[in-house]
Amino acid sequence: MIILGIDPGSRITGFGVIQVSGHGAHTRIQHINHGVILMKPTDPFPLRMKEIGEGMQLILRKYKPAQVAIEKIFLGRNADSAFKLGHARGVALYESARFGCEVFEYATRLVKKGITGRGGASKEEVQASLEKLLNLKAISRIDASDALALATFHAFRITNPLLRKAGRSQNLDL
Amino acid sequence: MIILGIDPGSRITGFGVIQVSGHGAHTRIQHINHGVILMKPTDPFPLRMKEIGEGMQLILRKYKPAQVAIEKIFLGRNADSAFKLGHARGVALYESARFGCEVFEYATRLVKKGITGRGGASKEEVQASLEKLLNLKAISRIDASDALALATFHAFRITNPLLRKAGRSQNLDL
Repeated sequence: MIILGIDPGSRITGFGVIQVSGHGAHTRIQHINHGVILMKPTDPFPLRMKEIGEGMQLILRKYKPAQVAIEKIFLGRNADSAFKLGHARGVALYESARFGCEVFEYATRLVKKGITGRGGASKEEVQASLEKLLNLKAISRIDASDALALATFHAFRITNPLLRKAGRSQNLDL
Repeated sequence: MIILGIDPGSRITGFGVIQVSGHGAHTRIQHINHGVILMKPTDPFPLRMKEIGEGMQLILRKYKPAQVAIEKIFLGRNADSAFKLGHARGVALYESARFGCEVFEYATRLVKKGITGRGGASKEEVQASLEKLLNLKAISRIDASDALALATFHAFRITNPLLRKAGRSQNLDL
């Protein structure tokens, strides 16, 4: 099964694609691709939405993921940036739903803990763990590593019977 | 020219469609349709995005507007509701941009002032003014009246040479 991880942003949206096969101890997670959808900051906002949505379409059509893992965002800081980010995330969810993907949301802390063992891990630590887990030489764009981490963490969840029991609860303390 | 007004919400998105012809004193504004895109509150969030996006597609295909007027939102209150609303608004902007529409944003206060003469007018006052301006018996859903007001206000802006001078500046004090 193909899993797409999405780390939405109002300027850069990261994506990571993996393939998962097997189960439990026999799980195999294979890296397929990762990268970013860049929005031109000089473009009017509606055009930036078009850039992210059409980028999503290209990725969805090319890799045909069955499931999408997307960052669950905790707010509280800035209503303005939450609003902008919401626009981009809405378009990403919309194209995923149109494509018939099941969508799962995970908080960054949970993903970091699942990938590195520490919820407070740095981007570099997440990247180093991912490179080991996915047998990659280097992740070319750090912007994509969160997306790849989301996809990989989701693969852990669905292939590990213990984790799977918790279903889609996003508050499971690993 | 067909103008589509959109009042996005994470549960109900209002729309209003008008046709504008002529110019200055010879402007004719004609009501075409108005209504709401309802999202099922029990549906998962990605499906709700699909509902609004596909609703937008139907409206855009049916009425083929050249321009879209959408509510400009002032935040500051609740980051969570701003975030949710951002998702819906992002999808509405995305479909408008994909369809090739020019998008204009107006603050509610400005629209109310343009339609009723008072920035602090109630929904009922806006509705009463619209019924007169568009020669309507009654606006069936109050949720759509803001959208219809946006479209009508935009028509005023583009057909009145004095207002037009201000171009797309949204801070013009009428």
